[in-house]
Amino acid sequence: MVKIIMHGCNGHMGQVITGLVKEDANAEIIAGIDMNDNGQNDYPVFKSLAECDVPADVVVDFSSYKAADALMDACKEKKLPLVLCTTGLTEDQLKKVQETSKEIPVLRSANMSLGVNTLMKLVQAAAKVLAEAGFDMEIVEKHHKLKCDAPSGTAIALADSLNEAMDNQYHYVYDRSQRHEQRDPKEIGISAVRGGTIVGDHDVIFAGPDEVVTLSHRAYSKGVFGKGAVEAAKFLAGKPAGMYDMQDVIAAK
Amino acid sequence: MVKIIMHGCNGHMGQVITGLVKEDANAEIIAGIDMNDNGQNDYPVFKSLAECDVPADVVVDFSSYKAADALMDACKEKKLPLVLCTTGLTEDQLKKVQETSKEIPVLRSANMSLGVNTLMKLVQAAAKVLAEAGFDMEIVEKHHKLKCDAPSGTAIALADSLNEAMDNQYHYVYDRSQRHEQRDPKEIGISAVRGGTIVGDHDVIFAGPDEVVTLSHRAYSKGVFGKGAVEAAKFLAGKPAGMYDMQDVIAAK
Amino acid sequence: MVKIIMHGCNGHMGQVITGLVKEDANAEIIAGIDMNDNGQNDYPVFKSLAECDVPADVVVDFSSYKAADALMDACKEKKLPLVLCTTGLTEDQLKKVQETSKEIPVLRSANMSLGVNTLMKLVQAAAKVLAEAGFDMEIVEKHHKLKCDAPSGTAIALADSLNEAMDNQYHYVYDRSQRHEQRDPKEIGISAVRGGTIVGDHDVIFAGPDEVVTLSHRAYSKGVFGKGAVEAAKFLAGKPAGMYDMQDVIAAK
Amino acid sequence: MVKIIMHGCNGHMGQVITGLVKEDANAEIIAGIDMNDNGQNDYPVFKSLAECDVPADVVVDFSSYKAADALMDACKEKKLPLVLCTTGLTEDQLKKVQETSKEIPVLRSANMSLGVNTLMKLVQAAAKVLAEAGFDMEIVEKHHKLKCDAPSGTAIALADSLNEAMDNQYHYVYDRSQRHEQRDPKEIGISAVRGGTIVGDHDVIFAGPDEVVTLSHRAYSKGVFGKGAVEAAKFLAGKPAGMYDMQDVIAAK
Repeated sequence: MVKIIMHGCNGHMGQVITGLVKEDANAEIIAGIDMNDNGQNDYPVFKSLAECDVPADVVVDFSSYKAADALMDACKEKKLPLVLCTTGLTEDQLKKVQETSKEIPVLRSANMSLGVNTLMKLVQAAAKVLAEAGFDMEIVEKHHKLKCDAPSGTAIALADSLNEAMDNQYHYVYDRSQRHEQRDPKEIGISAVRGGTIVGDHDVIFAGPDEVVTLSHRAYSKGVFGKGAVEAAKFLAGKPAGMYDMQDVIAAK
Repeated sequence: MVKIIMHGCNGHMGQVITGLVKEDANAEIIAGIDMNDNGQNDYPVFKSLAECDVPADVVVDFSSYKAADALMDACKEKKLPLVLCTTGLTEDQLKKVQETSKEIPVLRSANMSLGVNTLMKLVQAAAKVLAEAGFDMEIVEKHHKLKCDAPSGTAIALADSLNEAMDNQYHYVYDRSQRHEQRDPKEIGISAVRGGTIVGDHDVIFAGPDEVVTLSHRAYSKGVFGKGAVEAAKFLAGKPAGMYDMQDVIAAK
Repeated sequence: MVKIIMHGCNGHMGQVITGLVKEDANAEIIAGIDMNDNGQNDYPVFKSLAECDVPADVVVDFSSYKAADALMDACKEKKLPLVLCTTGLTEDQLKKVQETSKEIPVLRSANMSLGVNTLMKLVQAAAKVLAEAGFDMEIVEKHHKLKCDAPSGTAIALADSLNEAMDNQYHYVYDRSQRHEQRDPKEIGISAVRGGTIVGDHDVIFAGPDEVVTLSHRAYSKGVFGKGAVEAAKFLAGKPAGMYDMQDVIAAK
Repeated sequence: MVKIIMHGCNGHMGQVITGLVKEDANAEIIAGIDMNDNGQNDYPVFKSLAECDVPADVVVDFSSYKAADALMDACKEKKLPLVLCTTGLTEDQLKKVQETSKEIPVLRSANMSLGVNTLMKLVQAAAKVLAEAGFDMEIVEKHHKLKCDAPSGTAIALADSLNEAMDNQYHYVYDRSQRHEQRDPKEIGISAVRGGTIVGDHDVIFAGPDEVVTLSHRAYSKGVFGKGAVEAAKFLAGKPAGMYDMQDVIAAK
């Protein structure tokens, strides 16, 4: 039974994970961290990880980049493995993640779902054949109307995945309306659609002469991200210090 | 048998239409207009419409905006109905189209296909229910890698169609990567994908709470545009002066 | 404030609606009907509508066809309008629905979502142009792996909608693997995909010469059906006896 | 310069390939085989391969299964490598293909396009992660209204590809309308849509809990199949006897 501390337990994803873990025979949340709490959880809630004295195997974080520095310090202090799901970290924070991973195991992924992480690998295999043969690569992502950033972190991670497979020869284009010229063969166009409550759709398009191959992922609920985080927590508990990502979790299955 | 003069007969679309009309029992091309000619057509080819003395019922144009002024003048002079398929006309030229339509029948459409013109009507009916109920509207178009302008004329025409149905309260957004804010309920996002030889895909998306309605058109060859132009020519021959569009052709069926 | 009796209150959809109504300023559930109850709701729960003595404006039903006869009898007895969302009614029960609607208002729809009901109208408008012009019509639906019946009631309702628009000249084909012949122009092919937890996708495809128009609906949660049922309840309260459907609810907006 | 004999040169695909090879600097058609000929080709045309005395490097076949036996005999006789694109071979003929490949190189693929053959590999990689994790697998294919067989050979080849990756534990289901039971976890549903002039769409769907991954291929013209056949011919010329498929062509790039 893996004992989890849920950092950001009263946020939307924190509650999703709380619900998922209740039905998981191999994991339990033994404490939560959140600045605000009204006692609605079955576990004790602390204002910060530093204040939490409950013995645990791993910390799962879905909070805010603002809390990330203190979180990493406390994890190092307590020698607690960290599943870091918060996005929007600053450049300095990303460096700190690397530093932290020298002392404790840290797992970070742009997207926690099994499907997206499988897609990350598939698009590389596809690029090596199709982009090599002259196919153009484009990404379209769709998210709910409340999402402020564009394109999504997952879309950028997919583009990076394509680019890495092609020796980083590509650049990204977000807007074609102000240009009046043909597409560069070495560009990856990335389009962002926003509307309603769309949880997260990603299409990676390989367009060649008279044929198009498309690799798509669609999330139907945020539960898929929570489920990935729980799998990551079970994987990370007991691992040696180092950087991990969801690919490692999938590979270990 | 409707007698057509094909303006721009040796361009790509001119040749597509030449092929289509050969198999049409109710139409024939009796002359072509093109600056260059190597005698490959079954019909005589002239350098300009002014020089063409073959009696005809209608002119179909798929050439360049540069030729549009002389074309309209000659049509007025000869009292010839004009199916104007050239895109990218200037503001002055669009005014001249209106002027010209007072003396001869002129048909102009952003897209000549039956499918797209049906979509133009359907998206208005959908908007009146769904946008009215708070659904967000977005458009994604995909075209081949050689297309220079973005978004496509058809995508803009679809957005205009949506906007007209909603009392023109909407504005268009082409790029979200430089913004960091939630979508305005009164915006229509328009994304342009470019790659391979994609002939033309258009998706009109209505995204609401936990459901999405999408109306899509996909062209598999430029023949669909040629076919629409031939239908338009047959419709326009013999009509009184005025402005017409493909909706009129469809309604008359 | 419309007072609702929730018939089948402890089933999945009953609980979805219970949650939705809590956030609706113009409706409240004042009693529930369910054979089993463990007191988890804020409202009293009775074993049958006949036993329920709480004054109400309308009954919403998401239970089982097995309970439908007793339900209709009790609604007639109490002069309570009925929103009947249960599917899989027998032929005899469908006749009884008609009989019942002579005495009380009854609203029944194959699908309660705003999106699907809008699609029902759009596909008719599309068929009148495109099927008339020789386009072939096909439907593909996708649902979760637990769904036993195929094709879905909504897919059949969409096919009926297409067929009605075309003077009922079409027949439906569910399987092409045992045939070895070209498609009949007057057939509507209906395909059923099953997998995972897909809530409900429906594509209506109009395939013509070199172009395809597709009208699609995707549900992301069962909440869309609950929301439609609540709108239907608010609409039906106080109406005269008769048969109603979601189109009436949409038209009244 | 690879010298090709085009078997079935006056059929639709024979003419497509004739056009493609004209623009290929590394290949030429030096003779054609067809029962009927009106002299429209630049190369000599013979009634059978046996009668053709023009020295060549490889034979490309897009004719009919009826001609396949004589074709294989003549290729063996002349020691000519054979790219066999004809579909619908009988069981006996498939055995003869194997026998023939002991004496000459033979390349046969259910689908000659680069995109589909890439998809064949990608779906295996996807299945090993996603089907292993409990995702359900389904295939939807769409073709033009004239296609008599269903599902398409390519859809079956994709299903075989998935099944092979999963130790052949799966069975295929073509029709769910006559069943009233939940999907078996070990079934692959295959749906066939027919309409208009759709060249060939294939979707391979992996549906899991709250997420769906889809790998799709769309052909826009039959040129993609012709192009693959020409690449295959260039690859096969000079190879030792044996069975080859498009995967070998792709791997050799």
